[in-house]
Amino acid sequence: MGWGQPHVPVQYVSMKSKSTKAWAGRFTAVADPRMEAFTSSLAFDRRLARYDIQGSVAHCKMLVKQKLLSRAEGQKILTGLKNVERELERDRFPFLASDEDIHMAIERRLTQKIGALGGKLHTARSRNDQVLLDVRLFVRDEIAAIGKLLSRLQKRLARVAKRHRAVVLPGYTHLQRAQPVLLAHHLLAYHEMFSRDAERLQQCGERVNVLPLGAGALAGTTLPIDRAYVARLLGFAQVSENSLDTVADRDFVVEFLSSGAILGMHLSRLSEELVLWSSSEFGFIDLPEAFSTGSSMMPQKKNPDVPEIIRGKTGRLYGNLFALLTVLKGLPLTYNRDLQEDKEPLFDTVDTLKGILTVLEPMLGQLRFRTERLTEAALGGFMLATDVADYLVEKKMPFRQAHSIVGAVVQWCVVEGKELHQLTLQDWQQFSPLFEADLLPRLSLEAAVERRQSYGGTAQKNVERQLRSAGV
Amino acid sequence: MGWGQPHVPVQYVSMKSKSTKAWAGRFTAVADPRMEAFTSSLAFDRRLARYDIQGSVAHCKMLVKQKLLSRAEGQKILTGLKNVERELERDRFPFLASDEDIHMAIERRLTQKIGALGGKLHTARSRNDQVLLDVRLFVRDEIAAIGKLLSRLQKRLARVAKRHRAVVLPGYTHLQRAQPVLLAHHLLAYHEMFSRDAERLQQCGERVNVLPLGAGALAGTTLPIDRAYVARLLGFAQVSENSLDTVADRDFVVEFLSSGAILGMHLSRLSEELVLWSSSEFGFIDLPEAFSTGSSMMPQKKNPDVPEIIRGKTGRLYGNLFALLTVLKGLPLTYNRDLQEDKEPLFDTVDTLKGILTVLEPMLGQLRFRTERLTEAALGGFMLATDVADYLVEKKMPFRQAHSIVGAVVQWCVVEGKELHQLTLQDWQQFSPLFEADLLPRLSLEAAVERRQSYGGTAQKNVERQLRSAGV
Amino acid sequence: MGWGQPHVPVQYVSMKSKSTKAWAGRFTAVADPRMEAFTSSLAFDRRLARYDIQGSVAHCKMLVKQKLLSRAEGQKILTGLKNVERELERDRFPFLASDEDIHMAIERRLTQKIGALGGKLHTARSRNDQVLLDVRLFVRDEIAAIGKLLSRLQKRLARVAKRHRAVVLPGYTHLQRAQPVLLAHHLLAYHEMFSRDAERLQQCGERVNVLPLGAGALAGTTLPIDRAYVARLLGFAQVSENSLDTVADRDFVVEFLSSGAILGMHLSRLSEELVLWSSSEFGFIDLPEAFSTGSSMMPQKKNPDVPEIIRGKTGRLYGNLFALLTVLKGLPLTYNRDLQEDKEPLFDTVDTLKGILTVLEPMLGQLRFRTERLTEAALGGFMLATDVADYLVEKKMPFRQAHSIVGAVVQWCVVEGKELHQLTLQDWQQFSPLFEADLLPRLSLEAAVERRQSYGGTAQKNVERQLRSAGV
Amino acid sequence: MGWGQPHVPVQYVSMKSKSTKAWAGRFTAVADPRMEAFTSSLAFDRRLARYDIQGSVAHCKMLVKQKLLSRAEGQKILTGLKNVERELERDRFPFLASDEDIHMAIERRLTQKIGALGGKLHTARSRNDQVLLDVRLFVRDEIAAIGKLLSRLQKRLARVAKRHRAVVLPGYTHLQRAQPVLLAHHLLAYHEMFSRDAERLQQCGERVNVLPLGAGALAGTTLPIDRAYVARLLGFAQVSENSLDTVADRDFVVEFLSSGAILGMHLSRLSEELVLWSSSEFGFIDLPEAFSTGSSMMPQKKNPDVPEIIRGKTGRLYGNLFALLTVLKGLPLTYNRDLQEDKEPLFDTVDTLKGILTVLEPMLGQLRFRTERLTEAALGGFMLATDVADYLVEKKMPFRQAHSIVGAVVQWCVVEGKELHQLTLQDWQQFSPLFEADLLPRLSLEAAVERRQSYGGTAQKNVERQLRSAGV
Repeated sequence: MGWGQPHVPVQYVSMKSKSTKAWAGRFTAVADPRMEAFTSSLAFDRRLARYDIQGSVAHCKMLVKQKLLSRAEGQKILTGLKNVERELERDRFPFLASDEDIHMAIERRLTQKIGALGGKLHTARSRNDQVLLDVRLFVRDEIAAIGKLLSRLQKRLARVAKRHRAVVLPGYTHLQRAQPVLLAHHLLAYHEMFSRDAERLQQCGERVNVLPLGAGALAGTTLPIDRAYVARLLGFAQVSENSLDTVADRDFVVEFLSSGAILGMHLSRLSEELVLWSSSEFGFIDLPEAFSTGSSMMPQKKNPDVPEIIRGKTGRLYGNLFALLTVLKGLPLTYNRDLQEDKEPLFDTVDTLKGILTVLEPMLGQLRFRTERLTEAALGGFMLATDVADYLVEKKMPFRQAHSIVGAVVQWCVVEGKELHQLTLQDWQQFSPLFEADLLPRLSLEAAVERRQSYGGTAQKNVERQLRSAGV
Repeated sequence: MGWGQPHVPVQYVSMKSKSTKAWAGRFTAVADPRMEAFTSSLAFDRRLARYDIQGSVAHCKMLVKQKLLSRAEGQKILTGLKNVERELERDRFPFLASDEDIHMAIERRLTQKIGALGGKLHTARSRNDQVLLDVRLFVRDEIAAIGKLLSRLQKRLARVAKRHRAVVLPGYTHLQRAQPVLLAHHLLAYHEMFSRDAERLQQCGERVNVLPLGAGALAGTTLPIDRAYVARLLGFAQVSENSLDTVADRDFVVEFLSSGAILGMHLSRLSEELVLWSSSEFGFIDLPEAFSTGSSMMPQKKNPDVPEIIRGKTGRLYGNLFALLTVLKGLPLTYNRDLQEDKEPLFDTVDTLKGILTVLEPMLGQLRFRTERLTEAALGGFMLATDVADYLVEKKMPFRQAHSIVGAVVQWCVVEGKELHQLTLQDWQQFSPLFEADLLPRLSLEAAVERRQSYGGTAQKNVERQLRSAGV
Repeated sequence: MGWGQPHVPVQYVSMKSKSTKAWAGRFTAVADPRMEAFTSSLAFDRRLARYDIQGSVAHCKMLVKQKLLSRAEGQKILTGLKNVERELERDRFPFLASDEDIHMAIERRLTQKIGALGGKLHTARSRNDQVLLDVRLFVRDEIAAIGKLLSRLQKRLARVAKRHRAVVLPGYTHLQRAQPVLLAHHLLAYHEMFSRDAERLQQCGERVNVLPLGAGALAGTTLPIDRAYVARLLGFAQVSENSLDTVADRDFVVEFLSSGAILGMHLSRLSEELVLWSSSEFGFIDLPEAFSTGSSMMPQKKNPDVPEIIRGKTGRLYGNLFALLTVLKGLPLTYNRDLQEDKEPLFDTVDTLKGILTVLEPMLGQLRFRTERLTEAALGGFMLATDVADYLVEKKMPFRQAHSIVGAVVQWCVVEGKELHQLTLQDWQQFSPLFEADLLPRLSLEAAVERRQSYGGTAQKNVERQLRSAGV
Repeated sequence: MGWGQPHVPVQYVSMKSKSTKAWAGRFTAVADPRMEAFTSSLAFDRRLARYDIQGSVAHCKMLVKQKLLSRAEGQKILTGLKNVERELERDRFPFLASDEDIHMAIERRLTQKIGALGGKLHTARSRNDQVLLDVRLFVRDEIAAIGKLLSRLQKRLARVAKRHRAVVLPGYTHLQRAQPVLLAHHLLAYHEMFSRDAERLQQCGERVNVLPLGAGALAGTTLPIDRAYVARLLGFAQVSENSLDTVADRDFVVEFLSSGAILGMHLSRLSEELVLWSSSEFGFIDLPEAFSTGSSMMPQKKNPDVPEIIRGKTGRLYGNLFALLTVLKGLPLTYNRDLQEDKEPLFDTVDTLKGILTVLEPMLGQLRFRTERLTEAALGGFMLATDVADYLVEKKMPFRQAHSIVGAVVQWCVVEGKELHQLTLQDWQQFSPLFEADLLPRLSLEAAVERRQSYGGTAQKNVERQLRSAGV
């Protein structure tokens, strides 16, 4: 049965006794294997193993501090956990089909190693708060990791921008050539977007960084625990305030998925431009061969697969967000098993973002801009028309009238097959006596770019400021 | 690195030479491993291996028939394919990191086995039409499989309905008790929904069952192929009409995902009811222990995890649909690599639906309805009020006036703490002289149900008709 | 033009007495105006007025036929309805804030006109089945209307294709030039997509065309109605089978929204191409000025606003689908007030699709293709490379080897700055002795297109067949 | 209240001359009315009129300060704007079909009033940055308004919680009774959620509060404007850094829609609970009649329409978010007309949230909790089982073993038809000798609640702390 069955990673050892369930107490019937297979989360939540152990270590220390465990018991449990951790790291952990989830798997294994004492570790906690601890630790780490990759991508963008800071290309609106802009200014627009993404992720991270453990199943615990101590051990900035909210809440995951969807949207826009720019028609860039693929049928092809796939992955980033929003819609308090469906979208968004950022950064570094094509394109399309209108405005013509006159010039050029920089002063004066000799030197790309000195405009000084604040 | 890394199934054998790529022709640089890892689809599309070989067998036979391959060549290729298939079945196929996708993996392996002749199999086809062939074969099979499971679920529902065909429960609107209905009628409402789902899937299946192979990369092929012959070999009812549309089209996947989302929505409604019904407050059903779980903290709990997870999985079914719709938005013709993102949502919806249907059917079979609670509930909530109003209408009172009088009766009952069936004739006549002795016998659940004889109403004869047409 | 303008705020006439509510019976308190404003659907469901009256007329005739109304009563009601209809048509209908919804507004007005008898019209029906009747009649009409517009668009596409049936343009994969194709073939790819859309809408229409009236509030009715008769009067092909399902079901709306989303996706792809083609870089088309706009700032701009907005409207089409799927997730049977939220997404998708189809069809008719640019583009990009590889395959070289050789030729051309049709026989023979004099004549666009004779390929004969089946 | 009524069809005055377009310069053909109708945004963006004038006033003052307008010109324009504003406020503004959007409408009207000088107001700005200014001003105001309503709702929740701070109800997991909790604790869980919503909205608001004006069409302007001055006049905390990003960016709208979707999700959970609680089966609350509705068919009904509609409106909140994410996917820089589709989802989410918050707050204030039913429910369902297990843990039994013993007790109770608080000491000691006389007094609801003193648990002191920090 070797046919590419994905997603069946668990090493199943068949077990049948009802006694294996941590919750078996009141049950008389044996679990149906179809139910076990359907409800088990082990196939995906084993990814949280590292965090489950990290959380258990802190929980155990607190239980000792609060004398809910003796010092000796605590030591034995910590040693046992270390052993289990080692097995996990080395991929030697014997998962069982009956394990249900990573929490039960680890506790079961711990108990095999240190005996019934293992059962005491679950004192004063429930899987409802335990799983949230694991997920919050995971998201906290991954936000940091994504933040680092994003910052690296921004640095790369800034460096590429700096390298090309004299290059002009057409700025577009409606995918029509609009006004000449510096390539650096264009690339730094993405730098701005990613800065907002980073800020959103960091603020989300602060809402992640709240200790849930201690909320118990839903109502807190009757035992004298010290949540502040656990928070300190695990580096949480806050302790959650309301136990019912704590176990019912998945806001922080939704918010992470939303931030990821917006980041993905930005990446899809950049990718769209890379695809356009690498077409024969634009011809603005050469994608590095090392980051392109060919066709198995058409020998001439060099395809921009990487940006295409990045653009395509917007789909899953959006889909993951909507999956979880759907799960949460209309759920009564507090924990409902539906919430188990939070993990796969979360993991997928994490992997997708990290995958994209990892491949995009070096690819951008190897892009070759065909600067001659960029310049050629920037000279076409009557892009200096606005500058001519501005010229008339400086001569006190109302803007609307200036716009109308330049529109007429463009119309005439289209018929005559000319570009604006090819017109003579006489040509211009046919349209308005306000045109004088000082017009002609203004009709260069460099002059046009340089005259957009307004804060945030495309002039060099603005670009230099952006580069400095990007740290390159 | 054993920390629960899921989704890294490929057995990577490092390779570096550019010559391994089927499209390497014009390339001089070596592929960057980050690009390879990012763009490879092997981790998930290996699931299509069975269909890739099935399609290649048919393609090969056609090439022989059309004399594009000699009979001997064809035979050698078929034997080679059979060998490769066996390796796949036995999980002994040596995947390489450089394989890119399942098509290249199989061709590469074939060529290792039978030499350069393996390369001839790709004559007159492209991966663009090949992958569509695989996906269409896959979806066709899975629609059939899901159809079978759905039909089994419907049969089960009908049997449970039949078994309880004398049981009355409250029918609800706004989750308020509205009118008494037969439990069988209620269960058969889901049977109706699933019938529409089955019809939608079947009609989608007809749009799936169109041969794409022969569209080539996008424009057809210059070689004298016989597409109708391939269609016959593979059981396709039609051959696609326009090669550009053929390779650009993913409608059939979107439509399948949409049908799956609607089916999931129905399942979420049924699950919601199972969750409600198994609460202490409703107490309408006992979920089978074999399909329930307990709590690791609260010893008394018996939780409806299966319906909760089914309800939760609506999220991924919706998310998958929206993921692919997003991918397709605004893509120019024809094939773009973004389309590779169609597979994981497709596979996930298939697995999700099959998983749900597999577990739900036996669980329904073991449900125990607490009929005494159902009856008790059906007697409460003034549910016979409409019948009383209808009684007055039969006595020629305008409906709106009848409604108003019965409303007053209900209001009085609320204050007096009585139910309608507890009122005496004198009580009734306080509100209208039209109430006569023939009213009282009508105030039973059975009578109320039986009087709803209108086609599709809850009376026995309608339920019997539905049961018959459900084949039980 | 007075019918159900959506979103026109209701002309509120303040009323306070509880007695205005059709459901006031058991209530003692006056409705809070904030509740009334929040729950009222009149602002949007008045659009259904035409259908509400149409349904009431049929219902009334049936009540007479079944002797639930006398002939005289029926006549009076029908006359009253006709009066109300006239007021609605002339936009003189006096809506009241207290009307709640269009059903109550019409009944209230009817009663003002013909007295208490108006109340008898509601005999044997509930708003739960009544609203579904209205919505089904509406969707049935709108599917027909959209079908007509879609068919007109297809006809237009086919005519434009026919007019340009000798024009060649580059076919693209990955937005890279791939193989030359006929412009007609490209346009007819969209014709294919729209044919599938039409089929989906029509099949959805069959599931719409089922009479819901008679399901009552949820359980059918105790009165001796004749649903089949109503179905005949209103042209429904079927009568719904299960009353609970009937009032809980919104499948047909979701399915319509899904078909609309897929159609919108196709329109977004076509729009994307129109935007690309009208860019300076592609320069393939001139958009008609009458369907373009300029810039208030940049005098030279001619922007493809229509296709951009069409592409943008994909968002609302997807959003509407997702909105309703969300509403339905996890709703218990039967009617819940949440279902009121089905109408606005439905109306919006109807209006959006009709708006797009209305503007796109004439715009396509006025498109000017710049055929010289298309030809020029088709000659670039080494698009005949596959044909050369096929040439070698015909000479018995395995395809993979042929691909590799042609890849080397392309690489050489890139360095030398040549296109394939510029190479001499000697140039070719440097790469393989199999190249002979018969190669050169094959390197023309026309020959390349013509050789793709495989069924569905881009050769003339295939295009002619498609045009014929498109009826032009 | 004539400001920007949304969706009120424009009062069309037919006009045909091309000269009415601000961008007509290069155009020779007359706009097609179908194109005009399709592309016009006036029907919805007139809602921004107030902000458009506010922005123009600031822009005009800056132009005077920078001597781009004379003092006299500036004064004339400001007076003209004031006049136009008055017309808008009084709903006397004469909109024309040819106006395209609110910006052009206002400028056209201004020019009618003050002559060609009106055209100078557009000096140094473009509709691309102008519309963003309007939208940012709008969102800033609406975030403040929603924040205020949300805070009022929180206060209401806290007051209701305080009023019921001695009431115990069952806490649920899996909709199964789990542990007794204070009603106040339960209500305050929603207070927590809304606090996170408020924080998210406020942080989004900071990203909104950045001046876009001055970015021009895309590249800044050549005129010596002073953006910092405009920012000061309009109260913006920052000035945007990159003109290309500025006009292409809609992050702040997406983020607002996402925050709105999460808030809506919380509201859907609360609504679900209100629906459940008002069912006969739960019977926990009486919804105020003033906020309920009845049935036109079933005289006994009192339906929770308000929470149902709130729950249903989650659909549009999710749909709006997804609509805009779809619009933005894959758009190249900078402005594309697709972006016009940002407004309707934005307006709809604003209206939806304000509508919900407006009706929910007073409704909560009038809820009547049936405290006897809450207590009765809290005594059922073996909810003290965890406390008994904790009792054993205090006696040094490992938790897992304690859990197992209490499970057996529950099983026995189910068979015997008893609740835990009905068992004698002898009964208990059958299961473990560790049970002693001190067990029995612990088996009260009050004791159980009080013992959950862990931070964030349901004990009184925690609830008091939450109430204090909620300011009641």
